[in-house]
This record gives sequence, C-alpha cells and structure tokens, in this order.
Amino acid sequence: MASIAPSVHIQRAERVAHFEQDVWSIFTPLAIECQAVNLGQGFMNFPPPDFVVEAAREALLRNDCNQYSHPKGRPRLRNALAKSYSPLFGRTLNPETEIVVSAGANEGIFAIFAAYLDEGSEVILMEPFFDQYISNITMNGGVPVYCPIRPKGDATKNMAASEWKIDIKELESKITPRSKIIVLNTPHNPIGKVFSREELEEIGALAAKHNLLIISDEVYDRLYFNPQNHERIATLNGLWERTITVGSGGKTFGTTGWRIGWLIGPEALIEPALAAQTRIIFCVNSPLQEAIAIGFEQAEERGFFGSQVAAYEHKREKLLAVFRELGLPCTIPEGSYFILVNTEKIQVPSDYKFPDLLWQRPKDFRTCYWMAKEIGVCAIPPSEFYSKENQALAENFARFAFCKTEETLDAAAERLLKMKPFIK
Amino acid sequence: MASIAPSVHIQRAERVAHFEQDVWSIFTPLAIECQAVNLGQGFMNFPPPDFVVEAAREALLRNDCNQYSHPKGRPRLRNALAKSYSPLFGRTLNPETEIVVSAGANEGIFAIFAAYLDEGSEVILMEPFFDQYISNITMNGGVPVYCPIRPKGDATKNMAASEWKIDIKELESKITPRSKIIVLNTPHNPIGKVFSREELEEIGALAAKHNLLIISDEVYDRLYFNPQNHERIATLNGLWERTITVGSGGKTFGTTGWRIGWLIGPEALIEPALAAQTRIIFCVNSPLQEAIAIGFEQAEERGFFGSQVAAYEHKREKLLAVFRELGLPCTIPEGSYFILVNTEKIQVPSDYKFPDLLWQRPKDFRTCYWMAKEIGVCAIPPSEFYSKENQALAENFARFAFCKTEETLDAAAERLLKMKPFIK
Ligand SMILES: Cc1ncc(COP(=O)(O)O)c(C=O)c1O
Ligand SMILES: Cc1ncc(COP(=O)(O)O)c(C=O)c1O
Repeated sequence: MASIAPSVHIQRAERVAHFEQDVWSIFTPLAIECQAVNLGQGFMNFPPPDFVVEAAREALLRNDCNQYSHPKGRPRLRNALAKSYSPLFGRTLNPETEIVVSAGANEGIFAIFAAYLDEGSEVILMEPFFDQYISNITMNGGVPVYCPIRPKGDATKNMAASEWKIDIKELESKITPRSKIIVLNTPHNPIGKVFSREELEEIGALAAKHNLLIISDEVYDRLYFNPQNHERIATLNGLWERTITVGSGGKTFGTTGWRIGWLIGPEALIEPALAAQTRIIFCVNSPLQEAIAIGFEQAEERGFFGSQVAAYEHKREKLLAVFRELGLPCTIPEGSYFILVNTEKIQVPSDYKFPDLLWQRPKDFRTCYWMAKEIGVCAIPPSEFYSKENQALAENFARFAFCKTEETLDAAAERLLKMKPFIK
Repeated sequence: MASIAPSVHIQRAERVAHFEQDVWSIFTPLAIECQAVNLGQGFMNFPPPDFVVEAAREALLRNDCNQYSHPKGRPRLRNALAKSYSPLFGRTLNPETEIVVSAGANEGIFAIFAAYLDEGSEVILMEPFFDQYISNITMNGGVPVYCPIRPKGDATKNMAASEWKIDIKELESKITPRSKIIVLNTPHNPIGKVFSREELEEIGALAAKHNLLIISDEVYDRLYFNPQNHERIATLNGLWERTITVGSGGKTFGTTGWRIGWLIGPEALIEPALAAQTRIIFCVNSPLQEAIAIGFEQAEERGFFGSQVAAYEHKREKLLAVFRELGLPCTIPEGSYFILVNTEKIQVPSDYKFPDLLWQRPKDFRTCYWMAKEIGVCAIPPSEFYSKENQALAENFARFAFCKTEETLDAAAERLLKMKPFIK
C-alpha cells in the first residue's frame, strides 16, 4: 500500500463548523491558573446527601443495576418520579408513557430538539439563556430567535428577580410561521427569576395561539426561596398537551456528574423525544438512575428538599451580605443558585492589560477577568448567555454561583471585600 | 385564558418520523412473557469484576467524582486509556487531544456522525451491521449504503467466522462522490469475524483512495479467541490520520449499563467529534469514568483480560457443543460473544400460528419467535442487521449471545436439546 501523507483532510459537518470558543474554556482554566475561588460553574463543591450516595453504592452490588436499562429509564426511577411529581402536576403521571429518563437535562433537551426541529424550524428563547440551548438547536437544523428579559427595577439598588420582565408583545412579535418551540426556564439561570402564574399564562396563551411546543426547563424546581410557589406551566389550563417539562437529578440531589435528568409530558409529545434519545444514547447509566430513584423515595420522609433549600438560603444570604457591604446592587434570586451582580460601579484600572481575546467580547468578560486575576474570585460574564445583538444588556453584570461550601463562600467573601477601593 | 382542546398536534421532525419497530421491542417482552432463557440482547447477566465495582463504590465517596467532568472525559480515564492503548496502537497516544470519553460507544458513534455528515453524505456500512448505526446516520442527515459480508464456506458445516468475506470490488462499487465515511466493525457483531490484516489493508486503501473517514468500531477489542491477533486498521500505513477507533467500557469490563465508551484518533479528527459531543451530553457520568480508569490501571497486573477471554471461551464451547449435538452448523466466532447458528434444518411446524406482525418480516423472525415460545430460548433474528434488500441473506440464521452465566447457558442447553425432533 502506498504511503499516505499525514495531511489528510476530512471536512467537518456544517452543523459543528461555527461554534465559538465558549466562556467555560476561558474562565475555568483562568480560575485554576490564578488560584481564584471559583464561583463560576454551577456545580456543588460539597458532597451529595449520604443517603443518595449510599443508594448508589448499594446499587453497584446488584448486577441488573450494572447492565443496560430500558431506554425509557429504569422502572423504579420512573415510578419514583411519577410519585414525586404527580401531586406537583395535579394529575396522575403514567410512568410508562409520560416520563423518560435522560442523560442529564442537557441530553434530554437535545433529544427534544432532535425530535421536533426540521431544517429552518424556529425556537423562541428568552435571554439570558442556558448556553447549551443554542448549539442544541442549531445542530438539529433549528434557528434560535431571541427575546430579552429586561431588568425593570432601579439598577442602582438591589432588585427582586421578579423585576426582570419579558414584554409579551415583543415576545409575540418574534413568532413566525416557522416557529415550532418556545423554551421557558423557571426558576431561571442566571436571573433567579421564578415566573409568576400570570406570566406563565401569557406565555402559554401565545404558545396555544401559535401552536408551539413548550419546553419548560425546570431543572431548579426544588431550589426556590420565596414564599410564592414555583408554578408549572404544564399545570395551566390546556397547556399539559403542549408542554414537555425538563428536570435534573444533578440540581435536585447535588449530583451534577451523575448525568441523570428527565422529561415529563403527554405520551404524544414524549414518544418522539424517546425515539430520538434511544438512538442517541440507547439508555442512561443504570446504577445512578437507581440511586436517584431511592433519593426520591426517601426525600420526603427525610425532609431533604426543605433542608436543602434552607442550606442554599443561608449561602445566598452570605454572598448577598458581601455585595451589600461593597455597595454593589444585586438581583435577589427567588430560585436557582446564582446571583447576578451589577458591576457598573467597579472601576477596573483603565491601563489594565487584557489579553486581546477579551477585547472582542463585551465589557463583562474584562470585569470578570480582572476580578479573577486581581481579586481572586471567578464569576461568569453573563453576556455569554445573550445573542450578539443583545449582549450589551449584560455588560454590567457578573454571575456568581453559590452552590459552594460555607468555607468557599467565606474565602470568596474575604477576597471580594478587597475590591472596596475599586468601587466608586 | 380559553380552554384548549387536548387534541393538540405538534408534528415530529422528519429525522424521527420513519423508525420501524425494532427487534428489541418485539423479542425482549416476548422472552419475558414466555419465560425464555434470554440469549438475545448482548448484556452480561453476571456481575462486573469486583475490583471495578469496588472502584466505583470508592469513587462515589469523593466529591469531585460526583460533579461534572471535563467534556473530554476525566483526566485519570484518558491517561489510563492512553497507557493501555498506546502499545496496541504502536504510538504514544496524547490523552489531551487524541482520546475522548463518550457516553457508551453508541453516543460516541452518534457524535462522530453529527460531526461529519451533512445532508446527503453517504456512509458505507457492511452487513450485518450494528443496528444503531442506521438511525445514527439518518438522524444526522446521512444516507447508509450497504455492502454485505457473505458466508463463503460450506453452509452445511461449521464455518470459521473468517469465511465470511467482503468482496472488495463490490465494496468499491458502493463509493460515490458523496461517500464520506466507511464503518468497520472488528471483532464483528454478530458474525464474530476478526478482520485480517490483508482485509484491513484493502479496506484502508479504498478509504485512502476516496478520502473517506474510517470509523473502526472495536468495542469487542478485548474479546477475541483465535491465536491470530486482532489487528487495528488505525495502525496500518497512513491510516491513523483518517481513522477514529471506538471502544466500550461496557464490553471491556462487563458493565454495559455504565455507559462509558471512548474515541481514539488524531486530534484533527477527534476535535469535531468532541465539539459535537460536548453539546449533545455536555459530559459523561463521573463516578463510573473513574471506576473504568481504575479498571484499566489494574487490569494487567490482575491478568483480567486474559481470564475474561478464557471464561468467554469456555462459554462459547458450551454453546457450540449444544449446536453440534443438534447438528446445526455454526459460525465459530473468533471474537465478540455471539454465535450465528444456521437454522435451515429446523422444521417449524407448518401450521404454527404466528402473530401477523411476524409475517411482514423475514423467516428468521418466525424461527426465533417459535424457539422462544416453544423451546424456551430467546435468540435474535439477524435480518434486523441487514438492509431490506439483503435481508434474505440472514433468514436462515439466529444470533445467540453467550455473555451469560454458566447456569444460564446450561439451562439454555437443556432446552435447546428439546429441539432435536424438529431438526431434519
Ligand atoms: C437552565 C439549565 N438547564 C439545563 C441544565 C443542564 O442540567 P444537567 O446538568 O442535568 O444536564 C442547566 C445546568 O446548568 C441549567 O442551568
Ligand atoms: C458493534 C457494536 N458497536 C457498538 C455497541 C454499543 O456499545 P455501548 O454499549 O458501549 O454503547 C455495541 C453494543 O452491542 C455493538 O455490538
């Protein structure tokens, strides 16, 4: 056989040809490099609850938990999800037809887009958005269409997350005959907003009027703080039939690395998503499914969700106190584990040397870079979660994750307070 | 808000609109219904090795093993893979750029197709094929093109798997300007064929001549029996640069339900697959990655791969003995854990009542149905692994999996021998 030059070129597909360098690949190595306290990525740096870890360790001793599961998910987990979620949805969920276990919420959402988008189908997103939505849509031939959620409160003061509002007329103006799906995220990352019943009704009415599928990304559905309950759009009049609700074992039990998520919806909507998922991953890992099942079975009697919320509330207060001390206005999250901080008053020295790369990005990238390098705390610039057109809306914010130990938050607090001289 | 009729209709995407009912959804429930000994699906009904299970149980106690891993895979697993595979590839593999951990081989293969196929790109498959290839290709806009591997030996006698041959001229005749990828599977499911160096060179030369990407699905690379070594196409002259080799933790360590796989290849080919995978699943589950890493670290000193092969060889002999006794010719597998049995001599009673569904399928579906119902052993009809056009090639075969306990194989043997009166 003739020798072949190593300069083989195999052209990549169009669907993966235009990804930009993402925020994580800039800020995760940066945090490591400058030994910053990392409040960037939303994973817990404390262990999951013992009873869930123990359940996983036990499952590993049972061989059926080490082999392929049904593509729908293990019966025990689907049953546990049905039991836990039926009261929350106000209907008896059928674990055979209305629930599918996915490999994290992320893959579940990808499978929905694979199941419903044709070339040119449009998906309405609210900004800021969870960044994976974009590639999940475009890889499946879809086109993201954006509508910003705007802060309506006084930007110089703390603001309730509920003061971030969608303009429903603006939202409707984004709908075209090619619109297929609208994505809702509540509790919201990164705003921490829990959409009110009234807002959900307005969004739902639009979806019904234009026959859109609603993806309701509710991965933070066990993490909300305000007395006002988290409402589910799928429970509103007539909307069950057009909604797939997405959940995450990672967010629910502090196990982001287990890659267990779920989709809940009517059989007619779930079936195509399951068909897609079965081909993409065949099935989800078995032992950790079993453990999440046991987690749900025991969560109530152990009062787990309540004590988890209390612990997060304490963490939230700790971090909010720091920004209060610094005089930096925050959006007070009603749910999720993120705080959006208004950084406008931070005066980064005007002669500060930034890598060229950062000059191609909005100002929040530079603020967060400086904070990681000079203050030693890593946050995430939220303009990453906006379309190009609307990135300016985010340039005076930084996103801090508080799903971290008290020690980490204390260390972050200590460092952040050193920012005082730079605040006007 | 007005009440909306529950007869909402959201059209599914074209890419998931034409899946047929698959063989698993017919034969898995059937095996349960008639309490057949299930030699159908290729998962182990015995536990993974203790040291690997223990490694997973330990990993669960370390918090970094419970949170998100890098999308490439955990460094420890990539390092262990590099160490184990470098000698097998005859080159020092770079764990940073030449190895990606996937959520099972299946998702890894899907990610490659997502990374390389545009609408209408053609993928050359050899028949019989692993059934998930088809939907993985079509969901990404690709078109499968088929070339059969034909049994060239005497069908009335046992045959070496190596007697199943691809006609290289026929293979080349399938290549068009739209051909992008050729998929090779060695050791082969379900034939058990280990492609010879000469065959690989011929296939490689075609790939080089027509600038095709080679996906070498080597999930059974630790499971081969004949003294002739399993050769890797990526090690042949000039082919490294155009080959992505696929592996599976499930097959390697008997943990099909852990969903750990890997892709190995040059950086230029791996990078787009990683880009696709990062969007599809974000990352692979962490604790079981860590356990597979430890599995590789310890496998050699424990002599694990050797004793695993010896155990499978014993199982293979046990099952082959039954078919010898029955006078049914087999293809003797050189690798994988499947036996293709020639069922032509089985005389299913001509008045046997089959469900209508089975009359729309080739004869092997009916033979396997009858065997499950009347003999109590479930095998898989391999015509499922052929295109419509070539299904007839498989109608006199059944696939038996021997990745089962000795007890299960003994029980299967006892039942299979009851088939004697039906064999002419
Ligand atoms: C809004 C939102 N959706 C989905 C996900 C993905 O969740 P999972 O880790 O279960 O894939 C995240 C994770 O950060 C998220 O914030
Ligand atoms: C040829 C072949 N490729 C890929 C796979 C998928 O392997 P995994 O379970 O790691 O996804 C299988 C599983 O049966 C197979 O037989």
